[in-house]
Amino acid sequence: MKNLKLVARQKAQRTTVNVSNIQIGRDFIVIAGPCSVESENQLLETARAVKAAGADMLRGGAFKPRTSPYDFQGLGIQGLKILEKAKQETGLPIVTEVVDPRDVTWVAEFADVLQIGTRNMQNFSLLKEVGRSGRPVLLKRGMHSTLVEWLNCAEYILSEGNPDVILCERGIRTFETYTRNTLDLSAVPAIKELSHLPIIIDPTHSTGRLSLIASMSMAAVAAGADGMIIEVHHKPAEALCDADQALTPDTFSSIMKRLRPLKSFLNDLPSD
Amino acid sequence: MKNLKLVARQKAQRTTVNVSNIQIGRDFIVIAGPCSVESENQLLETARAVKAAGADMLRGGAFKPRTSPYDFQGLGIQGLKILEKAKQETGLPIVTEVVDPRDVTWVAEFADVLQIGTRNMQNFSLLKEVGRSGRPVLLKRGMHSTLVEWLNCAEYILSEGNPDVILCERGIRTFETYTRNTLDLSAVPAIKELSHLPIIIDPTHSTGRLSLIASMSMAAVAAGADGMIIEVHHKPAEALCDADQALTPDTFSSIMKRLRPLKSFLNDLPSD
Amino acid sequence: MKNLKLVARQKAQRTTVNVSNIQIGRDFIVIAGPCSVESENQLLETARAVKAAGADMLRGGAFKPRTSPYDFQGLGIQGLKILEKAKQETGLPIVTEVVDPRDVTWVAEFADVLQIGTRNMQNFSLLKEVGRSGRPVLLKRGMHSTLVEWLNCAEYILSEGNPDVILCERGIRTFETYTRNTLDLSAVPAIKELSHLPIIIDPTHSTGRLSLIASMSMAAVAAGADGMIIEVHHKPAEALCDADQALTPDTFSSIMKRLRPLKSFLNDLPSD
Amino acid sequence: MKNLKLVARQKAQRTTVNVSNIQIGRDFIVIAGPCSVESENQLLETARAVKAAGADMLRGGAFKPRTSPYDFQGLGIQGLKILEKAKQETGLPIVTEVVDPRDVTWVAEFADVLQIGTRNMQNFSLLKEVGRSGRPVLLKRGMHSTLVEWLNCAEYILSEGNPDVILCERGIRTFETYTRNTLDLSAVPAIKELSHLPIIIDPTHSTGRLSLIASMSMAAVAAGADGMIIEVHHKPAEALCDADQALTPDTFSSIMKRLRPLKSFLNDLPSD
Repeated sequence: MKNLKLVARQKAQRTTVNVSNIQIGRDFIVIAGPCSVESENQLLETARAVKAAGADMLRGGAFKPRTSPYDFQGLGIQGLKILEKAKQETGLPIVTEVVDPRDVTWVAEFADVLQIGTRNMQNFSLLKEVGRSGRPVLLKRGMHSTLVEWLNCAEYILSEGNPDVILCERGIRTFETYTRNTLDLSAVPAIKELSHLPIIIDPTHSTGRLSLIASMSMAAVAAGADGMIIEVHHKPAEALCDADQALTPDTFSSIMKRLRPLKSFLNDLPSD
Repeated sequence: MKNLKLVARQKAQRTTVNVSNIQIGRDFIVIAGPCSVESENQLLETARAVKAAGADMLRGGAFKPRTSPYDFQGLGIQGLKILEKAKQETGLPIVTEVVDPRDVTWVAEFADVLQIGTRNMQNFSLLKEVGRSGRPVLLKRGMHSTLVEWLNCAEYILSEGNPDVILCERGIRTFETYTRNTLDLSAVPAIKELSHLPIIIDPTHSTGRLSLIASMSMAAVAAGADGMIIEVHHKPAEALCDADQALTPDTFSSIMKRLRPLKSFLNDLPSD
Repeated sequence: MKNLKLVARQKAQRTTVNVSNIQIGRDFIVIAGPCSVESENQLLETARAVKAAGADMLRGGAFKPRTSPYDFQGLGIQGLKILEKAKQETGLPIVTEVVDPRDVTWVAEFADVLQIGTRNMQNFSLLKEVGRSGRPVLLKRGMHSTLVEWLNCAEYILSEGNPDVILCERGIRTFETYTRNTLDLSAVPAIKELSHLPIIIDPTHSTGRLSLIASMSMAAVAAGADGMIIEVHHKPAEALCDADQALTPDTFSSIMKRLRPLKSFLNDLPSD
Repeated sequence: MKNLKLVARQKAQRTTVNVSNIQIGRDFIVIAGPCSVESENQLLETARAVKAAGADMLRGGAFKPRTSPYDFQGLGIQGLKILEKAKQETGLPIVTEVVDPRDVTWVAEFADVLQIGTRNMQNFSLLKEVGRSGRPVLLKRGMHSTLVEWLNCAEYILSEGNPDVILCERGIRTFETYTRNTLDLSAVPAIKELSHLPIIIDPTHSTGRLSLIASMSMAAVAAGADGMIIEVHHKPAEALCDADQALTPDTFSSIMKRLRPLKSFLNDLPSD
């Protein structure tokens, strides 16, 4: 860990990443929305619903890294324009993925937070570009990555002059097949002792099962996570990707009604 | 999962395992104590401390499965007698491991709950014996085991006529080296949808790091676990095994002061 | 590795395990036969066929550790008597699994080599018993086990006075699902630099695919393995366990016709 | 596997990738050279040595994806010019890694084969660019990747019009720590039944141990691999990366003296 010059925690130091009036690293923030932007109607409907349920930010992919070249790859710039419209209407800041270093500059014009996906965690050319983008970066953990390798990737971004990195645990690959990946929730307190950066979790991709999302969201709050990013779709059965793991707005709303009180309760609990 | 005749959940069915006046599967129960019984003084001191801090049951190994034949293997019957003494004094029921089918009958005379360790999860001769023992069984997940394989091992016990099985998630083996194992907390809601058996977690062996235990204990409560089993030693630095991961009584007590209120808060939270 | 007092290699030391006139650790030995003994006819037919194809020893399980309690568990003593008959007729020494410490003494009356399966690698009670049995032991690697843990299990056997341990790599559990396990063939040269014990491989359980067995058998010879244990059934489609991974006698014979010449070629190749 | 339209094998079809007069997929080809190009002297010395020992192609990284941003990142274009010089002198075609889609066009001017590293296996922007480059591509398996995911990445390249893909198994990430990764040699016959593309192995990065390289190289030949890529450095102790796993020219030469005869022997062995 000797190379974690900028990322390693010094004493009680904590980084807060500011996006509009949201402080990631202080409040428990919830980023919600569909896997991919599919149409104006789909995104606006979903955006309104997650806003009503109390989400802080809107997610939606315009560039989708897909296992097969023949799967839906995202709407590209058209998707970004739809995200912009949703932001104008709801006021929700936008989190969206960037997958190519050549796209960083112009995608940053639409995104409040640039997301780096699990498959690109060690795409160092991309990391350097987002490090020069002037935008906060949400850096997902590689599904095969140790904590130390992940923090070194954050170091790539910070070393380019960008201090605003939000780490996101999204499940690691193990032998278990009941879940899509294995959520390594112990990464939350582990990262907090190693680094000053905020860390959120992704209960959707880690579990890959709707029935487990509520429990793992509650667990993430209790483990001390700074937030979560979660898939919500106004009509999950019609989703073009991850159709079987997106929450309906109603279920999302139910989860939110339990998360926020839990966070308040924990804030008020004496620390010792 | 077609073979899970007795273990699979039917509708809303939930099993409660009764040990003295403790109902595992209803309350959040805490089993605490040292890795191994080392001496009367060590065990009694620790037993009094965990009792005072609110533990429900006492753990302590008299037979220790160790990686090397030259490591401390436990005190055997002498250890069991010390456990008996601690029970008499504190009233705490005893959880202790059994490792050999030939020992089950007489170890069951000392134990309130028989523990099957991770290395013996698929020791089917041993499973059959504890299935005939008349004692509740705490069945740890194999570090390499899928959820379905684990439930099949519980089925071995139930099919011998013993309905009182408590499952215990203790971390699975992955590529990550920062933690000793990776706590698969999603196993808690997953097991609850697959089976009617109660499930607890072991924050000590899963993380292998003192600094992560408090957070993961809180997370386990929020994920819906039925309890936990945790290592406490009155003088951790002098412990004959796992010296670097046992809590002091003071730290254990601090954790308990946060766990119980969290459980109460969650019980009172509307479920939707 | 400091605890590997008896198992660690000293200089050029190599152990040869003698079974009848077979020297394991010197020749390339092939152990073949069905997963389990199902009937006298099945075993004798298969034994004759593998003998004719050049096998050195006969395998067959009388006690089968199965994931589910409702699967075929083996014929027990009846199976051992059938193995004895096959040995009388063919002259092939018998390798058979033992799963319970209470059975070691009498199973050793029928077995030339006692097999410890992957699920029992760390069943230390069983290891101690086979260490006192006076019979060579074939110790399979736990599917979750590091090389060092495995060697420590061999140390349990040697430390009871039994020097005749044959290690068997049978695949480790990984995320890959195309194969049943992942054959870690690098374990062959790795074990040879760490220990003086012979090591064989199991191409059947490691790959779980008939189509991969021939290639991996050839690779094992080239990697320096001391032999292999392989499933052959006279009518694979009718097998009571592992029906989809047992070779027919014909395919086995074809593989043998390539293995032996390869071994001779390698023996004659200048080492530098 | 339904999406493997171009990559899946049809009947006995086999692809041969031609580089100069070398036919990958027909002969057993050996690509050797240093991890990274460090200086003209280092590369030329090494190139001459591997040529003399019988290597078919020269490897050397000018762009190095490194865990930490503070590690040596390669010489860039200067490194490519040195590779060009080595090619002129020795006649060995060049294999070199490309890490950024913006570099593909001009790096392709220097490279005979473009390498995609394990961390970029699912960098789909990069895959599409090399798919349009007109150069053969050596596609390493992601350390976390299933066979099917890997083949889908090859499909990305073929679907852009480039049929010349060479797959390279370089070890997957498992729990074992004795080796750097676990060489999945069963990937060789598995890929050959799934696809018509040639497959080579990397014994250096998979094992991470000099002492295991010779055995695993021999095993790869016997498993049916189409070649290997191996690290050789004229003075390993002075290497700027992977200093502890590069072979000396002498050791490399010794290995080659055993590999080629083995391949000839296997070619002459009757297939049944």
